[in-house]
Amino acid sequence: MADEAPFQFLHNEVIQYIYKSADSGETENGRNISRLENMGFRVGQGLIERLTKDTARFKDELDIMKFICKDFWTCVFKKQIDNLRTNHQGIYVLQDNKFRLLGQLSAGKQYLEQAPKYLAFTCGLVRGALSNLGVKSIVTAEVSIMPACKFQVMIQKI
Amino acid sequence: MADEAPFQFLHNEVIQYIYKSADSGETENGRNISRLENMGFRVGQGLIERLTKDTARFKDELDIMKFICKDFWTCVFKKQIDNLRTNHQGIYVLQDNKFRLLGQLSAGKQYLEQAPKYLAFTCGLVRGALSNLGVKSIVTAEVSIMPACKFQVMIQKI
Repeated sequence: MADEAPFQFLHNEVIQYIYKSADSGETENGRNISRLENMGFRVGQGLIERLTKDTARFKDELDIMKFICKDFWTCVFKKQIDNLRTNHQGIYVLQDNKFRLLGQLSAGKQYLEQAPKYLAFTCGLVRGALSNLGVKSIVTAEVSIMPACKFQVMIQKI
Repeated sequence: MADEAPFQFLHNEVIQYIYKSADSGETENGRNISRLENMGFRVGQGLIERLTKDTARFKDELDIMKFICKDFWTCVFKKQIDNLRTNHQGIYVLQDNKFRLLGQLSAGKQYLEQAPKYLAFTCGLVRGALSNLGVKSIVTAEVSIMPACKFQVMIQKI
């Protein structure tokens, strides 16, 4: 019952806190987004470490992405990613049809501009998790119809 | 598996963030503690609202405290409070013998002074939950041997 709720409520408070404690303005919004992204990055690093403690070695990149979509997502959001697509050239699209952290926003279009601040933490979360598995990436997110959400992961080849 | 971990890691990040973004110094430490306490208060309010949605009316104050020790605590920390005591005059002591949010601190005495910042959020959490159930309180916490922890709830009669 309400298993993900403490995390969800705390996540909301963090957004409020970061936005309230900073000045307003365009640049500041960008900075707040990075703050949330950074926070997510470190949480992702910590979580994946704990989750993969007893996991067998991953076969390849796709294997890692599947772990993120299933085990990692379930740990954080109590559900799996609904759809994973890839172009087999380092781009992955993870679709969550009912993304929990958007659940409290109304579905109206007028709230779409609010969405980025509810996604930044999770982008960092995925990037941090992948980073700890040796995969460098850029993660962005996109909402078309709330609360559905797509995360695009671009693997950075070194 | 690692059910409480996302919450735990996020909680740690919040502490880091609040302490990093503020100046150091005695007063500032006090302010950071209140910030964490306030954040906990609002999370507690939200959570209890969700948790008690389908719950029968509480008989009395003790009944409320039992709900906090069982259902509320389990929702947030995945375990119950280990011991609840009361003087039947408005003071309750909730003891958690293995408090999760202290789990990452080493048990050495030298870390005891770090403990308050790991407890402030939870004090607020309890106060917020009680407040939404119509019970005004002061909540303080005390660590003797980590990671055991006692929360003292003083009910404020109006």
